[in-house]
Amino acid sequence: MTKARPNLHLPVVARRMERVSSFLAMDVLSAAAAKERQGGSVIHMEVGQPSAPAPRAAREAAKTALDLGRIGYTEALGLSSLRERIARHYRDSYGVGVSAERIVVTTGSSAGFVLAFLSLFDPGQRIAITAPGYPAYRNILEALDLEPVIVPLSKPEGWIMTAQAVERAHAERPIHGILAMSPANPSGTMIGRDALAELGAMCRRLGLWFISDEIYHGLTYSAPASTALSSDDDAIIINSFSKYYCMTGWRIGWMVVPERVVRPIERLAQNFYISPPYLSQVAALAAFEAIDELEIVKAGYARNRAILLEELPRIGISDMHPVDGAFYIYADIARFTNDSIAFCKRMLDETGVAATPGMDFDPVEGAHYLRFSFAGSENDCRETVSRLAAWLK
Amino acid sequence: MTKARPNLHLPVVARRMERVSSFLAMDVLSAAAAKERQGGSVIHMEVGQPSAPAPRAAREAAKTALDLGRIGYTEALGLSSLRERIARHYRDSYGVGVSAERIVVTTGSSAGFVLAFLSLFDPGQRIAITAPGYPAYRNILEALDLEPVIVPLSKPEGWIMTAQAVERAHAERPIHGILAMSPANPSGTMIGRDALAELGAMCRRLGLWFISDEIYHGLTYSAPASTALSSDDDAIIINSFSKYYCMTGWRIGWMVVPERVVRPIERLAQNFYISPPYLSQVAALAAFEAIDELEIVKAGYARNRAILLEELPRIGISDMHPVDGAFYIYADIARFTNDSIAFCKRMLDETGVAATPGMDFDPVEGAHYLRFSFAGSENDCRETVSRLAAWLK
Repeated sequence: MTKARPNLHLPVVARRMERVSSFLAMDVLSAAAAKERQGGSVIHMEVGQPSAPAPRAAREAAKTALDLGRIGYTEALGLSSLRERIARHYRDSYGVGVSAERIVVTTGSSAGFVLAFLSLFDPGQRIAITAPGYPAYRNILEALDLEPVIVPLSKPEGWIMTAQAVERAHAERPIHGILAMSPANPSGTMIGRDALAELGAMCRRLGLWFISDEIYHGLTYSAPASTALSSDDDAIIINSFSKYYCMTGWRIGWMVVPERVVRPIERLAQNFYISPPYLSQVAALAAFEAIDELEIVKAGYARNRAILLEELPRIGISDMHPVDGAFYIYADIARFTNDSIAFCKRMLDETGVAATPGMDFDPVEGAHYLRFSFAGSENDCRETVSRLAAWLK
Repeated sequence: MTKARPNLHLPVVARRMERVSSFLAMDVLSAAAAKERQGGSVIHMEVGQPSAPAPRAAREAAKTALDLGRIGYTEALGLSSLRERIARHYRDSYGVGVSAERIVVTTGSSAGFVLAFLSLFDPGQRIAITAPGYPAYRNILEALDLEPVIVPLSKPEGWIMTAQAVERAHAERPIHGILAMSPANPSGTMIGRDALAELGAMCRRLGLWFISDEIYHGLTYSAPASTALSSDDDAIIINSFSKYYCMTGWRIGWMVVPERVVRPIERLAQNFYISPPYLSQVAALAAFEAIDELEIVKAGYARNRAILLEELPRIGISDMHPVDGAFYIYADIARFTNDSIAFCKRMLDETGVAATPGMDFDPVEGAHYLRFSFAGSENDCRETVSRLAAWLK
């Protein structure tokens, strides 16, 4: 247990820190900001957040709360009015009955992951995630002394986590849970209703926890997304007001959990978070009534998506994962580079277009991928295509 | 690694959950709310939060931000303007020079503890905390597979964590860090400048991390509180806008950390929190300019404290820890009970006065202690004394 100390008097940081990496997207953000400070023109295709503000009704609700006075703690699981409204959302949007008692309001989906991992898994247990995938999964798991088991996505399997791929991994060495995301970050690819049901059935058969990250629900461009709850009442759902509801900086999200997990999560939430931010809870409640405004924002994404899907292939960026939802394009750029970090740096430097290197999402194949976010303006998308057209020649 | 499964199809929650308890204060809160719903009159002496709202300037700053539009992510370490303002606070209030780069804005002090524990300690390492003490320390440590080492406070040692007590524990079995709080919850007792310097020197000598929880700074009734930074530049400071600044439900706080810990904490914060809530950061920045308003709130606590310190002994509650700061009275009620949980239940039931049983803060001696919070109104304090006077006879 004794640690090596470079200096008797100054203790060193935890060894776990060697396994936790930073977001490359954040480094791109810093470089882009530096370029802007020097007067450069930057198009922000790197950030995974809506450029639209939270709906007016949400902001007004927050302002009213500010006038009324104290912004205090709430129950650790969140305001009961919000929990009930979220339960209704499952009836209205998916036809799934969930009691408000099973809803946990969280400080963003980030808190949802931490609460799920800590309540469900003990040190050393193994959780299947995909590559490419959201980098915080891997980093939070590593920081909590859990073992991420990487399931590489492949074209033949439709770029989604399949029950077969998980079973293969489990046969090699037992895993204890899976974390699937649909629509996915970085690709936007969806797991269809049947494939989701297969994942759930497989988890029941093998006794695995099924965590379904559904934070991009609402942002789909053909069929609506299915919730894992439709076919598996024991699934752990993680969702957020950040994406469809345009509320990133409010840090507010939710989980749906089986009854037997509510109390364990409540105890953890009391200690780790006390309660989610009050104003954000009040605003989130109001956001449910702002669908008209949010659908207009989404229509903008759909236009951006159409532009990029039509124009990018013309300039040589043609090999993309299926963009069923979310607001990302994840493109194979092997014909241009096998060093996506250097490529993105040079692209930012020479064209002012900021994108995220695939290495953020996949430490192996990501070397020849990049991610564009189209959550900004139509003009940003057109300008991206026009600047890259000249540069890629 | 295989877990016992009561049912092949349904996985069980993590074993760590057996070690994480809930807040009894929250149970009291629920019971008090139930009593109120039935029309009962409850005096809330149980909750550890100011009844005053955040200062007007803070609420106005939030409203302005709501009008300006997007409430987006900030850098993981927080807005640089806020980090700079906090650094200035150390110069102005303590005469301590700290660069803004060493300030980490956090989602409440809760996030500060999680970030500190994860960045500084590896599984199984041992951290000294006090009994009585803030229950989340023990629970977060347990949930993160760290070992809390309880240092019991004693009257001869002035009810504070002393360097001697820590050294005794360390000699028995090595510890890796200490977490001290001044003014303390539940007692309000402060660690003086010299004792704080001794703790720091002891940590340097033994190579331990020194975490100093200073969230009740600003709320002191004789001498101002000393920061551990004055005598130990390598101390980890955890602070919050919840108490002095009356911003509990905003979930916003900060840390001061040595330079070599900034990047590890930044990487963890990116993954675990993305960023602290934006509105809360903007409001916190404005709160620094609202000292006049906050001093009026504090003057109210001082009056409440004087009333309770004078009146409680008259009705038989006389054995208290020194109330140097914060807004709590931690009283030994051994002459009335050796079951503080049952006592608090009956007291709530029969008098409507809600207080927190000492068992929340100390699983052993807490059986004959209770905590009153005097963060409410003067009338609440007078009414508490009057109701208990009759009841305790």
